[in-house]
Amino acid sequence: MSIVTIVGAGMMGSAIGFPARENGHEVRLVGTPLDRAIIDHARQTGEHPTLKRRFPEGFKFYQIDQLTEALEGADLLVCGVSSFGVDWFCETILPIIPESLPVLSVTKGMQDNEDGSMIPYPHLFAQKVPGRNLSLNAVGGPSTSYELADHDPTEVCFCGPDIETLRWIKSIFECDYYFISLSTDVVGVECAVAMKNVYALAVSLAIGMSEKREGVIGKEHYNSQAALFGQSVREMRKLLALIGGHDDNIIYGAGDLYVTVFGGRTRRIGTLLGRGMSFDDAMKELQGVTLESIVIATRTARALRRMIERGLAKEEEFPLLLHVDELINNGKEVNVPWKEFETERF
Amino acid sequence: MSIVTIVGAGMMGSAIGFPARENGHEVRLVGTPLDRAIIDHARQTGEHPTLKRRFPEGFKFYQIDQLTEALEGADLLVCGVSSFGVDWFCETILPIIPESLPVLSVTKGMQDNEDGSMIPYPHLFAQKVPGRNLSLNAVGGPSTSYELADHDPTEVCFCGPDIETLRWIKSIFECDYYFISLSTDVVGVECAVAMKNVYALAVSLAIGMSEKREGVIGKEHYNSQAALFGQSVREMRKLLALIGGHDDNIIYGAGDLYVTVFGGRTRRIGTLLGRGMSFDDAMKELQGVTLESIVIATRTARALRRMIERGLAKEEEFPLLLHVDELINNGKEVNVPWKEFETERF
Repeated sequence: MSIVTIVGAGMMGSAIGFPARENGHEVRLVGTPLDRAIIDHARQTGEHPTLKRRFPEGFKFYQIDQLTEALEGADLLVCGVSSFGVDWFCETILPIIPESLPVLSVTKGMQDNEDGSMIPYPHLFAQKVPGRNLSLNAVGGPSTSYELADHDPTEVCFCGPDIETLRWIKSIFECDYYFISLSTDVVGVECAVAMKNVYALAVSLAIGMSEKREGVIGKEHYNSQAALFGQSVREMRKLLALIGGHDDNIIYGAGDLYVTVFGGRTRRIGTLLGRGMSFDDAMKELQGVTLESIVIATRTARALRRMIERGLAKEEEFPLLLHVDELINNGKEVNVPWKEFETERF
Repeated sequence: MSIVTIVGAGMMGSAIGFPARENGHEVRLVGTPLDRAIIDHARQTGEHPTLKRRFPEGFKFYQIDQLTEALEGADLLVCGVSSFGVDWFCETILPIIPESLPVLSVTKGMQDNEDGSMIPYPHLFAQKVPGRNLSLNAVGGPSTSYELADHDPTEVCFCGPDIETLRWIKSIFECDYYFISLSTDVVGVECAVAMKNVYALAVSLAIGMSEKREGVIGKEHYNSQAALFGQSVREMRKLLALIGGHDDNIIYGAGDLYVTVFGGRTRRIGTLLGRGMSFDDAMKELQGVTLESIVIATRTARALRRMIERGLAKEEEFPLLLHVDELINNGKEVNVPWKEFETERF
């Protein structure tokens, strides 16, 4: 039996504790300063208030003031904050843990550098605590927290620098509904997964466009969604090649795109934009929804534009990504460049 | 203005006439001997009985006895039969047309050879009329007939041996809702599209499995669908490499997989199998549904098994395809080999 301490009691941070606890490990869930109400609620009811699922028997709950106690004897630390909490995690948690404690991050995303390169969170973590030799690993692949907690069969990829450490972390979580591939290609896995944010928004545009054309909310067409899905796969593969990630990682990009179009919040914003709403108006309508996806989409587009400026990428190879960027960052109205997706191969 | 003669008045054969007619071309729709009622209905009502859409103004309708009249002066022949009508088309139509009349086939699928190679319909057509020098082209990519007729933006790929001919055919159909890429990689395009049949069934298994687990019909989960979608993309790319098709064709495979999971009939059979029903029982429940997809899935699996026998492919690289084959051809019950999808990359 190992001790798994999770810092960040959001939905995914909490849900990944389910397979570990059900495998018999001790799981300690520590709320961030923003999670106090979640921890209180969990203690009182045994349920997570937004995940709306009962925690497995024996889950332990800690407020941030009890962090030291929660870290005592821990074998694995899970970073369960959202991408908005990454700085806090790096400043508050990473400096105080022993180097012998491996970290697994469920936070999905990346940051972009001045030169247009994209840096996945595990590498960002390492930069934020220079001189510390931590084992920093991350989870990629299509997994919504609700469905993981519901035991829906889920395939993810754990990535990190050392395959032996990854195998050990896998042994804690693997079970008959949680299947785990391993990869040392951290940039490839994490960036494939981050990229899906911009493309989930892109595919969802077709939903709003067909609603507008038909004059019926909820009337979906799939030819146009499939056209955008296909173009997304093409552009994601080109992005993967640009950042030097292995091409097989497209399965995480495509799978995560699929799950985000159907199960995620990004669909709502894409649908509103597809109906012809401006980004600002759509944001007003979705007040209160955390839009990590917009932040990540913007970073992806900014990185691409810098690579184009530097002659490393061609503008005409990414018409869909650049259109979405125009929608969310330059106030443009939807006007999908369908014709630019056409190719000739001979 | 050109004259487009379509032989086969099924849904896709009919729907592809919409953009041509709306572009001002003369469109002549000829029913096969099995399509008599469709042509009668179209003449009386101006509607297609199963597509349930009004034909554009000026569409012309012909029974098979009027074939000669319908071919008179034609500039392009569209093969609109289902894959069950391919032999009839090759025996009845191809021998009598002039070599100067290009053919565009909307029939999707392929046949498998003894050696495990897969032969797309345009190449099969050529084999069936030896000595004739016909221009044989085909349409691939995600497009349901209903949605094409409804002007939902649709991206397809026309493939054939000669890029100039393809450009001319494209000029007849291209419009503000029908976007056409061109490719001389006929094997790659057509096989990518054929492969999606087996994988659409595979992804749909997750729908029935989650219904069964939850005890609620229509209760969907997306983690498991996304896991199967990702594995499908991986296996389709490997199949494409095996047959020597260009890797970018995965966008047609992935797009067509997406549209088939959501808009197609294959979803129904996959869902029933996912609930644990045997293939025979599922077939009984779906009486009357044309299951081209099962035929194509079986051919794909048979081709793969021969390639494995010949040492050209590895069994462990296609766990999902081989499982679906076990379900539909060997009476097995669903038991998705999730663990076999796990990989290690280091």
